[in-house]
Amino acid sequence: MSDEPRPLLVDRTPFPDDGIDERLRAQLTFLVEIDRLKTILRQSPLVAAERRENDAEHSWHLAMMVGVLAEYADEPIDVGHTVQLVLLHDLVEIYAGDTPLYDTAAGVDQAEREAVAADELFGLLPKDQAQRLRELWDEFEERRTPEARFAKAMDRLQPLLLNWMASGGTWRTPGVTADDVRARKAVIGDASATLWKAGRRLIDEGERRGWSRSGSGGDGESVEQG
Amino acid sequence: MSDEPRPLLVDRTPFPDDGIDERLRAQLTFLVEIDRLKTILRQSPLVAAERRENDAEHSWHLAMMVGVLAEYADEPIDVGHTVQLVLLHDLVEIYAGDTPLYDTAAGVDQAEREAVAADELFGLLPKDQAQRLRELWDEFEERRTPEARFAKAMDRLQPLLLNWMASGGTWRTPGVTADDVRARKAVIGDASATLWKAGRRLIDEGERRGWSRSGSGGDGESVEQG
Ligand SMILES: [Ca+2]
Repeated sequence: MSDEPRPLLVDRTPFPDDGIDERLRAQLTFLVEIDRLKTILRQSPLVAAERRENDAEHSWHLAMMVGVLAEYADEPIDVGHTVQLVLLHDLVEIYAGDTPLYDTAAGVDQAEREAVAADELFGLLPKDQAQRLRELWDEFEERRTPEARFAKAMDRLQPLLLNWMASGGTWRTPGVTADDVRARKAVIGDASATLWKAGRRLIDEGERRGWSRSGSGGDGESVEQG
Repeated sequence: MSDEPRPLLVDRTPFPDDGIDERLRAQLTFLVEIDRLKTILRQSPLVAAERRENDAEHSWHLAMMVGVLAEYADEPIDVGHTVQLVLLHDLVEIYAGDTPLYDTAAGVDQAEREAVAADELFGLLPKDQAQRLRELWDEFEERRTPEARFAKAMDRLQPLLLNWMASGGTWRTPGVTADDVRARKAVIGDASATLWKAGRRLIDEGERRGWSRSGSGGDGESVEQG
């Protein structure tokens, strides 16, 4: 790690010195910087094109799912608040990188790296907003509220749908079994019995069709997000 | 136009016949279909990569902007509601295509094509949700509420920021002048005097640097979104 300040996107074309006050300048600096989320690739394949999804597309898709599927939450949720959580849940990956779901080695210091990344990225904002976004991100990570549990369920259900549409997608990753997939997806059931029943139906049917390997022999080390 | 039903993405890998009830099946069908938004390219260049932005990335970025910039709305707005508007405002382009801002020929039947597209796309959902999303989209289009005006302002301010970061971006399109850009962006001022002042500052400075052509000689026919 170097002590050099990280170059910001806005440094490439700095705003004029006058005519934009300090608070708004900080907010626009942050809003330009998060353009990077569009370049963070996930493992999941798109349905509509032959390429992997990026985190900005994924976050948008989760927000739409919250709006459409909120009625299945087992505990009452505030939809607008849940949408806020999914919109920002992956932002820290801009500086911390994406940690694939089954990559245990990379997961060791993930929490620490992501906390540092959150301080740095949210710290571009005025203090009050930096603190608010940090609280929202902590809420998502800790899953102590019904909104955070539902947001997490969407984060697991969305790539499950993409993998289903790809006749297996990352379920076919060597070393991953159907039991691994079921275990990773079970948090959907912490938010919605109905959605977890539907998700499990797709995983079971995928296993029956040979899209994932049967049994529990997975080593849990392989790269999978779906 | 043919009377053939349009093939849906979900038809490529239909859900199992059992285990997912009709209402949820309709919702998941819609949520798979809107994956197409990730393939609709805009004119605006990303800041963080050398490619054009797509509508899903754009919609996510607008939602983040609403969360960060809501304090500048001249009329009080409901942030959650405004976020809903920006998340879905471009969905009709999935079936209607994107109409560039200055392409007057294509604009003629745009409203009609988009209304048909809205009926078809939202019609995949259960009736109550189809109606709710249609109402939200109409609200955005008609700009009669403070939330719709602020959503529209974000829709104009975001590509302005991207163009600034690209040292002009689509402002450099032949036939477009700085006056054209100012005229197209003026709706930002219907929602926020502060944000329009900042936006105009960037347009003015871009003109001074020669990123856009001075004067009002634009023919208004060229392709520009920024
Ligand atoms: Ca993630």
